Amino acid sequence: MSEYSIGLDLGGTNLRAAAIDTQGRMLDKVSGSTNYSEGRQALVDDMVNSIAHLRKNIGADGLTGIGVVVPGFIHLKEGVIANCNNIACLENFPIRDEIEKRLSARVILENDANAAALGEKWMGAGRDVDDLVLLTLGTGIGGGIISRGQVLHGFLGMAGELGHITVVPNGNPCGCGNRGCVEKHASAQAISAMARLAGLGDVTSEQVHRMAVGGNEKAQEVFAAMGQALGIALAMLINTFNFPLYLLSGGVLAAWDQFAPPMLEEVRRRSFTFRHSHTRIEQATLGNEAGLFGAAYLPYRRSDALAQAAR
Amino acid sequence: MSEYSIGLDLGGTNLRAAAIDTQGRMLDKVSGSTNYSEGRQALVDDMVNSIAHLRKNIGADGLTGIGVVVPGFIHLKEGVIANCNNIACLENFPIRDEIEKRLSARVILENDANAAALGEKWMGAGRDVDDLVLLTLGTGIGGGIISRGQVLHGFLGMAGELGHITVVPNGNPCGCGNRGCVEKHASAQAISAMARLAGLGDVTSEQVHRMAVGGNEKAQEVFAAMGQALGIALAMLINTFNFPLYLLSGGVLAAWDQFAPPMLEEVRRRSFTFRHSHTRIEQATLGNEAGLFGAAYLPYRRSDALAQAAR
Repeated sequence: MSEYSIGLDLGGTNLRAAAIDTQGRMLDKVSGSTNYSEGRQALVDDMVNSIAHLRKNIGADGLTGIGVVVPGFIHLKEGVIANCNNIACLENFPIRDEIEKRLSARVILENDANAAALGEKWMGAGRDVDDLVLLTLGTGIGGGIISRGQVLHGFLGMAGELGHITVVPNGNPCGCGNRGCVEKHASAQAISAMARLAGLGDVTSEQVHRMAVGGNEKAQEVFAAMGQALGIALAMLINTFNFPLYLLSGGVLAAWDQFAPPMLEEVRRRSFTFRHSHTRIEQATLGNEAGLFGAAYLPYRRSDALAQAAR
Repeated sequence: MSEYSIGLDLGGTNLRAAAIDTQGRMLDKVSGSTNYSEGRQALVDDMVNSIAHLRKNIGADGLTGIGVVVPGFIHLKEGVIANCNNIACLENFPIRDEIEKRLSARVILENDANAAALGEKWMGAGRDVDDLVLLTLGTGIGGGIISRGQVLHGFLGMAGELGHITVVPNGNPCGCGNRGCVEKHASAQAISAMARLAGLGDVTSEQVHRMAVGGNEKAQEVFAAMGQALGIALAMLINTFNFPLYLLSGGVLAAWDQFAPPMLEEVRRRSFTFRHSHTRIEQATLGNEAGLFGAAYLPYRRSDALAQAAR
């Protein structure tokens, strides 16, 4: 039996799990909607059952390990989600230990954006590089940093909170306590809010995109502002890391044609490094399966010190 | 004979070189002023002669290698300074190869702020950690990032240009092409400029500091603005890296009592990670010898991939 791992990605609306072999081939997959209203017990049951189902189907013999991906700030060593706006019932709960106990197997925990960055590095747009930064543009903005092939965790596992880069010093207030976080000026939520302020009514970011494509100047202005905000954050990241590749993913990516030109103009203006090196800013390619691939890749890593310590 | 290396630090006003052993003991040192007006040839002569003098004094037998530290954006692989506002005559000149040829010895080149960060990690305030960020607050602001004990170089060696983090989107113009770089809002130069704008006349940052200590409210306001700008950049770095230690060095450090309180307040407000982890923001301890120690440490490194490739 060939070696494989099981990855589970707990998202805001979906729970996905897959058995993936060392070559990145998906052997089996289960998915379902997440019902947070039924509480923590039901949620953990769903997670455990999904993994157990795959392990039974493929066979426990070849299983290298299990990777579990959750949103929020994670204390890696403790295996605890410190702060999770989307899934309040999991906050300060020892999720890793609980799943390990119920499966009698070791589990590696990772943050969703870190895992997506790792997935893109392993099997997506980042296959050819060792260093990249990923920004996930969804309801909020997440970030993952891959340095020398490994997730950059920081000393507690809280690195890569790139949605909270300040792009407007006295801009929109954020739940994190800051003002002007890029997440509050360039996410799907921010696009909707700007559109409403511009008099476009109660619209989703997808609707704003369609308006912009149709020639609505207010909608186009929203994407100009959003692209500029994102450009400020990207320029900062490029000046800080001088990595070869910066990836964008998430639902807002559909509006690339609208926001990318002002974003790139802003980056060009604000980053000497961008202008003087071959730095790529590209769309991620794994879509919403990046986290799943990243989750499955977690047990395959060999030399990630904090991940090892966490295990 | 015990093993030693020679480090040379070419600063804006001083050229320093030292022979330092593996334990960080300084065996010998030479220093002098840099006279850029005499042109590149004289400058390179000074550098080569300083190193040759030390090598002759201590003996070539125990010499592990030579590290040379220069200001500016450096293309590490090519050993060329791409951009150097302070020393225009060295721009696009193959400084490393020239010194190597004249000394018949291998030379490792590094950027000044990176070297200072490495020096602090080796023998200064960062001895107890593997990950740190250093900001040098001088005429401008430089940055160095140590990740897993090594300088984070990026793919061309241009990482750590932290003086060009945007803290005021439409703030003061910078030579790099950006506006509102932290260097233009929190350096010695910025302190002078703000003081002048506040009606304090043509004063140095040291004079503004003395005025602030003496109770001058305008001068205190300058340091409040400077500290806040620095706090925005630090919060961004903390959210990005989640490292245990952030060091400040350089001449502006003398005004710590004035700028640190507003800086820390800003960081606290803007960084969830800072509020929820034991993150230290401290003064560097090696002063203007950090770069010299970093230069001497360069040949002692074993596993820095780009540095190795560059060698």
